[in-house]
Amino acid sequence: MVGGGQLARMTHQAAIALGQSLKVLSVTADESAALVAADVQLGSHLDYDDLLRFAQSCDVVTFDHEHVPGDHIRKLVAAGHEVHPGADALTFAQDKLQMRRRLSELSVPVPRWARVGTVADIEQFAEGTWPIVLKAAKGGYDGKGVWMIDSASDAAEIVEQCAASGIELLAEERVQLTRELAVLVARSKFGQVSAWPVVETVQRDGICVEVIAPAPGLSDAVADRATTLGIEIADKLGVTGVLAVELFETIDTDGRPAIEVNELAMRPHNSGHWTIEGSTTSQFEQHLRAVLDYPLGRTSLRAPYTVMANVLGGEPGGPGIDERVHHLMAKWPEVKIHLYGKEVRPGRKIGHVTACGSDLESLRRSTSGAAAYLTNGTFV
Amino acid sequence: MVGGGQLARMTHQAAIALGQSLKVLSVTADESAALVAADVQLGSHLDYDDLLRFAQSCDVVTFDHEHVPGDHIRKLVAAGHEVHPGADALTFAQDKLQMRRRLSELSVPVPRWARVGTVADIEQFAEGTWPIVLKAAKGGYDGKGVWMIDSASDAAEIVEQCAASGIELLAEERVQLTRELAVLVARSKFGQVSAWPVVETVQRDGICVEVIAPAPGLSDAVADRATTLGIEIADKLGVTGVLAVELFETIDTDGRPAIEVNELAMRPHNSGHWTIEGSTTSQFEQHLRAVLDYPLGRTSLRAPYTVMANVLGGEPGGPGIDERVHHLMAKWPEVKIHLYGKEVRPGRKIGHVTACGSDLESLRRSTSGAAAYLTNGTFV
Repeated sequence: MVGGGQLARMTHQAAIALGQSLKVLSVTADESAALVAADVQLGSHLDYDDLLRFAQSCDVVTFDHEHVPGDHIRKLVAAGHEVHPGADALTFAQDKLQMRRRLSELSVPVPRWARVGTVADIEQFAEGTWPIVLKAAKGGYDGKGVWMIDSASDAAEIVEQCAASGIELLAEERVQLTRELAVLVARSKFGQVSAWPVVETVQRDGICVEVIAPAPGLSDAVADRATTLGIEIADKLGVTGVLAVELFETIDTDGRPAIEVNELAMRPHNSGHWTIEGSTTSQFEQHLRAVLDYPLGRTSLRAPYTVMANVLGGEPGGPGIDERVHHLMAKWPEVKIHLYGKEVRPGRKIGHVTACGSDLESLRRSTSGAAAYLTNGTFV
Repeated sequence: MVGGGQLARMTHQAAIALGQSLKVLSVTADESAALVAADVQLGSHLDYDDLLRFAQSCDVVTFDHEHVPGDHIRKLVAAGHEVHPGADALTFAQDKLQMRRRLSELSVPVPRWARVGTVADIEQFAEGTWPIVLKAAKGGYDGKGVWMIDSASDAAEIVEQCAASGIELLAEERVQLTRELAVLVARSKFGQVSAWPVVETVQRDGICVEVIAPAPGLSDAVADRATTLGIEIADKLGVTGVLAVELFETIDTDGRPAIEVNELAMRPHNSGHWTIEGSTTSQFEQHLRAVLDYPLGRTSLRAPYTVMANVLGGEPGGPGIDERVHHLMAKWPEVKIHLYGKEVRPGRKIGHVTACGSDLESLRRSTSGAAAYLTNGTFV
């Protein structure tokens, strides 16, 4: 797996059960997965020689992020290496303009969008209705590379900076959403596709803070539509591995719930961390099954509800992480802890907590309480 | 963790979630845990210098087997290292004579037993009723070091060989058992004790082949008695970490079900592999919590029944393990696979499979079918 972050770390746990051992290409020795995997190559995912040397020691190459240039992937494949997902699929998770174009061609519902190069383009797109959303076509994550724009003058500086850096921009309508959902699917090399139940993702400041599986109160029609969309996108884009489709739930003109696709990710995804405890097959095991071309595993729920809350790094000071874990275990014995071995920095995702059961409000209270305690070191 | 076997391998998986990384002392680089852990020291658990160097790089030392000499452990502790379980507790899992003596002192029900040094001792113990069971006080596992003896002449060769090797022997009555059970508990350094539900263990040729959790049809009285015994033994022997108490279920003179203690193990144990999927807290996580002195986790069931079947290595030939895994996943999608990365040798434990649900007979069929398929490469 190229990339040494928490996704590779948790994929290593799943690989161990399958009798495999994940080899990791990590930029530094202190990345999450590099700390725990037996076989680590230090190197850059942007350097073709590093990638080639890595691929030569692997049966199959896959990714914990979307930052490997497509041309490098194509060269690896031309050199006889097996890489999943492939460059042609991955481009739709790397480039939001390509993704919007392709999904529009497939008649997948997406927010109204346009490629914009100038402030005039943005004014024309807005048609006098503000705010609109500006997005960098490449390189954004966790709210970075996304701007809420209230007026043409607001956009000027961003347009100028992106033009100077060669970053393409797209404008999107600001969707009147009810909430955010996500559907996670996996597609194997053979072409088998499997979906987990649709989840609700709760965002704060552009960062996912909580995932509820399955999405409470979701109509069967929307759940079916979202699942079908996820499977269709995985199939049409030729994805191998896990595909996360982030969705907006909206109300259509007839007052019925509807969905639009927000973003795609082609790897295990934060919206699927709940599957470790909450599903028969975790997203990490399923990703491995998919890229190794094994039959996919059951995606059934292991409890009526599973709630996952991200643990963000807090301000320095207060009790150490070890003491916090101790108190968390005593106060919330129902909560499962996943720490990524990362240095704590304010706002950085350093772990997550999960709880399974039938009382949703209680699960949300304990997971959000436990996550906040790990962040702040104080009971709230 | 001293020892690089499958118990260390699965403990590493649990350590990763807790933000820890397990350091492993392994005899060779191709042992189960050495293949997947980031931090491996090659060395012998019988060599004090190896152990000392290992302990110097660990916060807490624990074990994946019982083969470290007590004197080495005492020296490590005297040198200021933290070792759990301690030598005074571990001796009762290393030496069956000491274990029988101590349990008898504690009025724990055990089979009738005696230390025997000669064939005459054995004849006297048998009182004309054969067979009896002979056991080597030290070094046995998976049926090794245990002999069923039908007559005094049967015993002669064993007595002679053991005397020559300095191995002490004990004789035990052959218990008329209904079935075998096990109770697994964990005790933290602080002294908190927690038990999982009592399980049934199914043996074949002295090797555990299947574990059913919880033990079906177990009376509340026997379940309570077994759980109380497990907690009491952990407490009285001063165990830190997981303690497995192997039990015989018998019928007492009043025709009621009763139990006697067979063996003790002070580490994660084969009878607890089901907890990975079947309980909120796995035995591997609990062992880490106990030796790191965290509060212990919930031991509640995650399904009405969980069945675990051991996968033994089969005869050479037939489809490769990768192809077998492929077919297993297709035929038994409900089964979770755990492979230990070991070279296949006939009869060697190379993995286990688990399934959770409510239909016990169906779970037993699928796990035993899947395990047999991995062993033999043919559907039975």
